[in-house]
Amino acid sequence: MDKLSSLAKFKTSCPFLGRTKSSTLRTLCTSASSRFPTLTRLTEKATECPVMGPALAMRSGQMVAGYASVAGNADVNKIHQANGVVLSSDDIGKCPHASKALAAARMADELSAAKRRSDAIKAARVAHEPSTSKAGASVASGCPFHAAQASTSTPAAKPKPATSGFDYEQFYASELQKKHDDNSYRYFNNINRLAAKFPVAHTANPKNEVEVWCANDYLGMGNNPVVLETMHRTLDKYGHGAGGTRNIAGNGSWHLNLEKELAALHRKPSALVFSSCYVANDAALATLGSKLPDAVYFSDSSNHASMIQGIRHSGAKKVIWKHNDLGDLETKLQAWPKETPKIIAFESVYSMCGSVGPIKEICDLAEKYGAITFLDEVHAVGLYGPRGAGVAEHLDYEAHKAAGNSPDPIPGTVMDRVDIISGTLGKAYGAVGGYVAGSAKFIDMIRSYAPGFIFTTSLPPVTVSGAHASIVYQKTYNGDRQLMQWNVREVKKRFADRGIPVVPGPSHIVPVLIGDAAQAKQASDYLLQHHSIYVQAINFPTVARGEERLRFTITPGHTLEQLEHVVAAVDDTFTTLGIKREADWQAIGGRCGVGSEIRETVTPIWNDEQLGLTGMGAVAPRTRRAGEPRKIDARAINQARKKFEGLLGPVVEQPQFAPAVNFSGLQMRTGGGNAVRNAVNVPTPRAMAATA
Amino acid sequence: MDKLSSLAKFKTSCPFLGRTKSSTLRTLCTSASSRFPTLTRLTEKATECPVMGPALAMRSGQMVAGYASVAGNADVNKIHQANGVVLSSDDIGKCPHASKALAAARMADELSAAKRRSDAIKAARVAHEPSTSKAGASVASGCPFHAAQASTSTPAAKPKPATSGFDYEQFYASELQKKHDDNSYRYFNNINRLAAKFPVAHTANPKNEVEVWCANDYLGMGNNPVVLETMHRTLDKYGHGAGGTRNIAGNGSWHLNLEKELAALHRKPSALVFSSCYVANDAALATLGSKLPDAVYFSDSSNHASMIQGIRHSGAKKVIWKHNDLGDLETKLQAWPKETPKIIAFESVYSMCGSVGPIKEICDLAEKYGAITFLDEVHAVGLYGPRGAGVAEHLDYEAHKAAGNSPDPIPGTVMDRVDIISGTLGKAYGAVGGYVAGSAKFIDMIRSYAPGFIFTTSLPPVTVSGAHASIVYQKTYNGDRQLMQWNVREVKKRFADRGIPVVPGPSHIVPVLIGDAAQAKQASDYLLQHHSIYVQAINFPTVARGEERLRFTITPGHTLEQLEHVVAAVDDTFTTLGIKREADWQAIGGRCGVGSEIRETVTPIWNDEQLGLTGMGAVAPRTRRAGEPRKIDARAINQARKKFEGLLGPVVEQPQFAPAVNFSGLQMRTGGGNAVRNAVNVPTPRAMAATA
Repeated sequence: MDKLSSLAKFKTSCPFLGRTKSSTLRTLCTSASSRFPTLTRLTEKATECPVMGPALAMRSGQMVAGYASVAGNADVNKIHQANGVVLSSDDIGKCPHASKALAAARMADELSAAKRRSDAIKAARVAHEPSTSKAGASVASGCPFHAAQASTSTPAAKPKPATSGFDYEQFYASELQKKHDDNSYRYFNNINRLAAKFPVAHTANPKNEVEVWCANDYLGMGNNPVVLETMHRTLDKYGHGAGGTRNIAGNGSWHLNLEKELAALHRKPSALVFSSCYVANDAALATLGSKLPDAVYFSDSSNHASMIQGIRHSGAKKVIWKHNDLGDLETKLQAWPKETPKIIAFESVYSMCGSVGPIKEICDLAEKYGAITFLDEVHAVGLYGPRGAGVAEHLDYEAHKAAGNSPDPIPGTVMDRVDIISGTLGKAYGAVGGYVAGSAKFIDMIRSYAPGFIFTTSLPPVTVSGAHASIVYQKTYNGDRQLMQWNVREVKKRFADRGIPVVPGPSHIVPVLIGDAAQAKQASDYLLQHHSIYVQAINFPTVARGEERLRFTITPGHTLEQLEHVVAAVDDTFTTLGIKREADWQAIGGRCGVGSEIRETVTPIWNDEQLGLTGMGAVAPRTRRAGEPRKIDARAINQARKKFEGLLGPVVEQPQFAPAVNFSGLQMRTGGGNAVRNAVNVPTPRAMAATA
Repeated sequence: MDKLSSLAKFKTSCPFLGRTKSSTLRTLCTSASSRFPTLTRLTEKATECPVMGPALAMRSGQMVAGYASVAGNADVNKIHQANGVVLSSDDIGKCPHASKALAAARMADELSAAKRRSDAIKAARVAHEPSTSKAGASVASGCPFHAAQASTSTPAAKPKPATSGFDYEQFYASELQKKHDDNSYRYFNNINRLAAKFPVAHTANPKNEVEVWCANDYLGMGNNPVVLETMHRTLDKYGHGAGGTRNIAGNGSWHLNLEKELAALHRKPSALVFSSCYVANDAALATLGSKLPDAVYFSDSSNHASMIQGIRHSGAKKVIWKHNDLGDLETKLQAWPKETPKIIAFESVYSMCGSVGPIKEICDLAEKYGAITFLDEVHAVGLYGPRGAGVAEHLDYEAHKAAGNSPDPIPGTVMDRVDIISGTLGKAYGAVGGYVAGSAKFIDMIRSYAPGFIFTTSLPPVTVSGAHASIVYQKTYNGDRQLMQWNVREVKKRFADRGIPVVPGPSHIVPVLIGDAAQAKQASDYLLQHHSIYVQAINFPTVARGEERLRFTITPGHTLEQLEHVVAAVDDTFTTLGIKREADWQAIGGRCGVGSEIRETVTPIWNDEQLGLTGMGAVAPRTRRAGEPRKIDARAINQARKKFEGLLGPVVEQPQFAPAVNFSGLQMRTGGGNAVRNAVNVPTPRAMAATA
């Protein structure tokens, strides 16, 4: 606020400030320069101004002479030695004196570098500009604060010969301004999730750690030991990139095996892997809809952006039906002749509200009206069903459990009745990539016609192998899914006890209603700054205005202490920021199901029996405590290892590297390690020569 | 041919064969079943037929009793012991008797499994079918050979209640038939590139190795030691997937640092990374064209599919100009008012013909007519310019070389004049992913509005770090680029000496003209089968009919012996298959520049001086010989290592793991290894428990 009121004063005298919207100035003075992170973007721009530039240069000099000298390790150590403390260079970063001095020194350096840079660019521009534009414009053209005043034909970002053409840069700026104006401009948080400390990440500063409560690595498979082991081994043997498209040098056993695995997972004849599930949905829906003659899409109103794009790109007709409203869907289906090709496109778990599509009933309608079904299980694969195939599998839990690893369809089951299933490798499987599964002819048609599949480099063997290991592990082991759902129940219960408003739903998504864009952002920032908890605010356009929320994702890796921490932290945030609780919403009639009767009628997809809470010899999941190791399933590890023996050979342990802990005969290495390297043929430094 | 003539006989008696096109039958009997690779798809289908099924079952039984018993190791050893040879189990695969017997045994097993499977599916179908459809249809419905005769309402692939609706499966089949009919149906080769044996790969059988001559891992960076080392370390510290979109938990220092590196590489203010360059082109062009009011795209007629899609998805007007024809472009630009937003979209290196866009001249036209330029450098980044920034950089080679690592633009250079550059991480950089670089506002607009960027899981830190290491290495070391171009010159020269027709061009692409779709496929198959050389045939629609070709890519990793091998092999292929040579094309007036005067006028982009062939103290590149190690540049390795110290810490070598060869003080580990693992905080088996 101080900064803004100073700016208001300057606005009256500076032509740049005077002509610029307050919201733009707010952005400029609250966002860091990408080149000089200690400076705001406004300060960086100011180094180019003929008035401010010299003033800033002087300030930079003063800072270097002042604070900066304190930053030398020797000086800092002197201060601490006086207090009887000797610091290592690592510790200096933790000392408030030293870190402040270092920050000041860095800022002074960057200020000075920014000034030097703007001078150099200005000089270069003058040297290269056509001689006609030199006169009078040389000082002004380099300055974003005053340039427009001196010459309207020279955009600051890039000098072009004066033309009467379209002003592209100005147009980009106006499009960005719209985002600032409606508060939908996105500031990305810098989050680096640490494999060894899951679910903890470090921020831009590797020493600053936060708990992650909104990632889609739902089961922590990104750091599962057999995933990492398989990837290390694949990397050693097959290197990094695939080296081509699927048609030209980029198709190998890894890709074919993964597709076979995915087909078997969904008990469909075929599957096809794409760069991402965004591409899978886009490419499959666009190709299908453009091929089928006069096709009509029936699209759930809450469908994901990738499906909306795919449908749009198909050029086919589109009918939107109300989210999860079977009556509305049927009315709309009835309006078209039975012989018209129709595709009902919908999701199982809707990621922003946690609602679940009525898959079985939609299949009934599809059959009645001659439609096919396209089901997006992106937020469900790995998490539902006895093998992790998704909600469609979960609906016939016992039948699929009994059928085990068989790839054959089970006729009459919901999963068999759905025609096309799309899924991702980037969420519960902790990898990257997406896929569709369906009939052999459908998949072959997409494979043969979709440009987004055909004309792109295929995924690297190493990421494919990591995804494959993850799927096999989760297909074999049910415990992570159960523990995750248990933890979700725990958090929902604790939030409810404190009146924290959770949008009711039967899935693992925990959307905490805030109901205001600015407050949602504040709450997210407050949790990060005061509680080291990272949960992203979800605002318009991802959710409707007035339905802004914090979307929590809870994993089997979160400890009891972390569960307690997040609930207390959210409670504090609600109190401190004065955010509406359950009772407040109830008083004004409710919103998004919060403060209404809906919650009472919601039954979780995972029932008590499936969670192991009832039945003979049931062993209920138990949230682990801080310091307790995460459960790793040896049978699942071995299943995955066996899958890859054909390509990677067996895992050979060397006695000197054998770990101290032996899991029932399973000797586990997390990384690639020498044990692995000895088992496969990898290049050694001996095989290389240096030119330097 | 035998198979087909037998089929012709059967056609008269079998209703399935009689109703099916010969081309479909050809496909079915020449392509392997995905489920049972030793069987053709026709044989697999036949197991479902009431007539053929029992006959095949009997045959399977005979095979098991006959050949199969020979396959036992004991029996095989007996045969060889009689000849005084004792085999290890590994060697059995190499013995012609044993491998034939094993193959027969496997085929018998799979035949029997296929029959069991079809019986099981049939039984399951009967059990689940509505009772009305049971009568009379139960045998026929399971059989693709006779089903349609018995009942037209039950598609073989999936039983649905009888409806008068659209027949989706039949439609997919007809779309696939079109691909078979025009010979554009794609059969993917199974190619697994081996890091330690670059450019060698194994096929579906890990023992069967082939030389790869068509991959886009142009410089072999997929197996560069600092790339692999960085990836192993990143995997250990940060695990696999990014865990979210860039906005929600999937944005970290790796992504931000890579984008900063890419911006600096192209000396642009900003860059943005996407899942692939297909997505980068699609998303950037679609967003740009849909935002700019009444924009017009001017698209080179040879542009890549991803650009065509992006332009189409933008909904903007599109004007196609003749490939590389400046006169045509200018005529078309003139037709629009200067103030209309215009984007000229084109490539630097066109990947299928090896031609190069006149970048500078297009910039001149853009400035003259108020357009902006979108340049796809996908097949050029890493390969051209003193730092690998592409052809735009190469055009001011000395200026960019002199400016070194500075990220600042060099005003007046071609690279600076191009507004937007797109590039890939999946080809010369040997990784995966794509990007665009341009002005800060342009990039921020794409970042803020492109659904294909916003709504997708970001690339895993491990792939991003591998790509980043690769860029830094190639930015520092010029030798791989030079050696590649040298090898390209060598191959082109040797092909020319033997009259092998190469489409003339100034780039690294070596397109060998075949001029006939069937012959191109035959040539590719022949090279693979007879010479263990993999080069994919490029047919319509990727190239025009009559311009079919083999597209060779030559890397710095190919040895002199391999160069000689490929030339001799192609020569043999041309002779054996009677493919037209240079002189034959000349006699009929030439095609694609082959057999014309064009070749004489083409000057390579890399000139003699840049290749080190002239000038003071020049050291010309020299093709390595078999067994000779590949050159690794220690300075480039160290540059990359230094980049990642902030996140991964310094590389710490442990004495007991130190390699025997020391490159001028550089101790190199190819993999992650314990040396690395000790330097970072990774989970150990100690920290885990097993449930099994």
